[in-house]
Amino acid sequence: MTLYERCADDIAELIRNGTLRPGDKLPSVRDASLARGLSRSTIFQAYYRLEAMGLIEARARSGYYVKSGGLPITCPEPGDSNPDGMAKDVDVGQMVFQLIGALSRRDFVPLGSAFLSPSLCPLARLARHLGSAMRDFDPWRLIEDLAPGNESLRRHIVLRYGMDGMVVPPTEVVLTNGGMEGLNLSLQAVTQPGDVVLVESPTFYAALQALDRLKLRALEVATSPAWGIDVDAVAQVLKRQRVAACWVMPNFQNPLGSSMPDERKKALVALLAEHEIPLIEDDVYAELYFGPRKPLPAKAWDTQGLVIHCGSFSKCLAPGYRVGWVAGGRFAARIEQMRLMYTLSPAIPSEAAIAAYLDGGGYDRHLRRMRAALLRYRSIAMEAVRLHFPVGTSMTAPQGGYFLWVEMPGSVDAARLHALARERGISLAPGALFSSDPRSAHCLRLNYGHACDPRFARAMQTVGRLAADMVPC
Amino acid sequence: MTLYERCADDIAELIRNGTLRPGDKLPSVRDASLARGLSRSTIFQAYYRLEAMGLIEARARSGYYVKSGGLPITCPEPGDSNPDGMAKDVDVGQMVFQLIGALSRRDFVPLGSAFLSPSLCPLARLARHLGSAMRDFDPWRLIEDLAPGNESLRRHIVLRYGMDGMVVPPTEVVLTNGGMEGLNLSLQAVTQPGDVVLVESPTFYAALQALDRLKLRALEVATSPAWGIDVDAVAQVLKRQRVAACWVMPNFQNPLGSSMPDERKKALVALLAEHEIPLIEDDVYAELYFGPRKPLPAKAWDTQGLVIHCGSFSKCLAPGYRVGWVAGGRFAARIEQMRLMYTLSPAIPSEAAIAAYLDGGGYDRHLRRMRAALLRYRSIAMEAVRLHFPVGTSMTAPQGGYFLWVEMPGSVDAARLHALARERGISLAPGALFSSDPRSAHCLRLNYGHACDPRFARAMQTVGRLAADMVPC
Repeated sequence: MTLYERCADDIAELIRNGTLRPGDKLPSVRDASLARGLSRSTIFQAYYRLEAMGLIEARARSGYYVKSGGLPITCPEPGDSNPDGMAKDVDVGQMVFQLIGALSRRDFVPLGSAFLSPSLCPLARLARHLGSAMRDFDPWRLIEDLAPGNESLRRHIVLRYGMDGMVVPPTEVVLTNGGMEGLNLSLQAVTQPGDVVLVESPTFYAALQALDRLKLRALEVATSPAWGIDVDAVAQVLKRQRVAACWVMPNFQNPLGSSMPDERKKALVALLAEHEIPLIEDDVYAELYFGPRKPLPAKAWDTQGLVIHCGSFSKCLAPGYRVGWVAGGRFAARIEQMRLMYTLSPAIPSEAAIAAYLDGGGYDRHLRRMRAALLRYRSIAMEAVRLHFPVGTSMTAPQGGYFLWVEMPGSVDAARLHALARERGISLAPGALFSSDPRSAHCLRLNYGHACDPRFARAMQTVGRLAADMVPC
Repeated sequence: MTLYERCADDIAELIRNGTLRPGDKLPSVRDASLARGLSRSTIFQAYYRLEAMGLIEARARSGYYVKSGGLPITCPEPGDSNPDGMAKDVDVGQMVFQLIGALSRRDFVPLGSAFLSPSLCPLARLARHLGSAMRDFDPWRLIEDLAPGNESLRRHIVLRYGMDGMVVPPTEVVLTNGGMEGLNLSLQAVTQPGDVVLVESPTFYAALQALDRLKLRALEVATSPAWGIDVDAVAQVLKRQRVAACWVMPNFQNPLGSSMPDERKKALVALLAEHEIPLIEDDVYAELYFGPRKPLPAKAWDTQGLVIHCGSFSKCLAPGYRVGWVAGGRFAARIEQMRLMYTLSPAIPSEAAIAAYLDGGGYDRHLRRMRAALLRYRSIAMEAVRLHFPVGTSMTAPQGGYFLWVEMPGSVDAARLHALARERGISLAPGALFSSDPRSAHCLRLNYGHACDPRFARAMQTVGRLAADMVPC
């Protein structure tokens, strides 16, 4: 940190703890320079920064004052996206891999990570189940479980659908190598190269990569941070365009954190069914809800077998075990055959350990603890954005999951911010990873699943400061 | 078993144990009928079967005699394949999935299986490593190990290359979800839809499936059961045809069991390098050699980074753990990026357990035991073919791995044999799975990796009998 940054931070802290109050006048640049033993230009830079952060304001011919209203208590939500409605070839390029490279380094503060802190998961208990389940494992099952996969685990998955009031036959459940493989297989099962796929704007970059890999074209649809994809906009597209599939995250969307209300889910499913279009539903954050009850997936309204529901244990129980599943509707058999051709099967020990964990009970207790922690982390992160990010920043208030979508003033280039943060040991996920809409260029997806990391607060401060530096006077 | 089958088996046993010797006359049909209390037609059927099996011969106006030479001591090897040299779209269709369905049922005798008996592997020790490695596992590594993958495991792989005199940098080693994913990723990394890929004739059906999935065209090249793919034939093809890649198993080829001599490997690598064509080398059986030393992979002669060497722990150490690797040459980075997009990573616990097992030592001791067992199993299986299969059957004598390629007389329809065996609880892998060459229609890939199964001998007898039934008088 430079001298002026430290000076600005000191003053921000005085404002934050109430020593300096709204309307208070700051010492003149000359007085502060004398008092702090710093050059005048350093003081000037510090005040300039505080101004960019929205904490103080210059009054003509008078000096600097703590801003009236002081810290904004709430940050506005970003507006709905407004993509251009054209189907495009996808080229996410190398940025994702740079990002993944950075996030796998433990010396980086993982604000841009797609993962939450593994320490939120019952790793020790899972490890015990790994050892014991495999110690008594019938060798023949190492072959038998390759297809259709661990029977007990598939039964648990079906049971959990049942707890949500959904009837999903076990034959429809295909175990996959994490949610990623499920989503890739689902896409491939229902498309041909050159097809158009509807996605939210912005959408998870892995969706864009999968489209790229399969030579599909993405058509981004307007999406609200408050209630998800715009069903009317989908209807408009379907009037003018042949569409092979629709890929949506109705619950705690990555990167927005948005959630579709039930009526909208129902309307989307009905609309797509009318056109016989498969809906690929990425629902890997479903268990990480903050509200009183688990949100239903869109699949709950599926009567045609057209909704392919993709889940995973990676986000909520067993990171790195690489076990997910697909409830594949009418495409289940095809998806399973494709998995057999591609990776054969998820790891049998991983499946067995998760099944044994679920047999043992305690999963819901773990999930309650995890949700409480994430809700706490969300508050920490939102507060940090309010405190450190430049005036004009807006952000979503997600009702689950672990991503904030932060829209900064138009002058902030998130890709450049990403590069600067990287130099400072902080990973960021710039908006361009998630959308070709130019507006996403000044947005960030902020992962708050690591807010327990002691480096988190400082990193948020650093990023906020770097962003403020990009805001013109 | 019917009466005549039992009777024929009894007599075959008398021939086998030397009670009846070459040149001995069998009792007349009438005498035998009286002696055994069976109808004449039953005796006639039994003699007829023994004749089809090549054990006895009818001499005009005299009767039946034990055949001179008795049991053939060796079975001839099948001839080289002679495919039509045309690139074709691939459509392996549903047969593979039927096969996989049957082989995952434990009540089936898995002669058609692609897997060997898991009980040959140190499952209990691996299970202990699973539990202990994950108990002490640094949670952060659940993220850190996603890319580029467990460092200790990659070091072990590099060390084993080193033991073969090969220098492979760790950055070139990409861990994959079993050998299957490695092969799929490698193919995708070096081809575009519509491209032509050279394969052996016959070749592993998963290669054909991967080509099908990626909309590639297969060009089968003549392949010798004795020394593998015909390098001159490859050279001829390259003169007249643009080729994107070549997929070969130089060691213990699946399904032939053939092995390329070193000079041929070297010649193939040089030829392809001349044309800048990547060689995808499937070498998953390399550790299961019967000779005095491990055969080198073709990659040992690669100076251009054009050989992608695919290995796996599934066949020789940890079935069901789904850990393989690719030494990707100049394509390594691309292959790793594709894996990150597709499945993200193999299961971290599987990687950790295998790394801990290798750390602990004893891998080579295990492999020695496994090879000795498989060599014994091979003898059992070859003997069973000689004893039970119809005259005119030829088979390979593999120097490693666990597959025999059996070519039956032209009248035997292997697909029909497969269907009949299935009804009797035996899985078979008919030749049509491995090649579009009509000649493969009377071939079988026989898995002898389960010859320790008490049902094995009886199943071989059953299949041999069913095949003999298809041979005209």
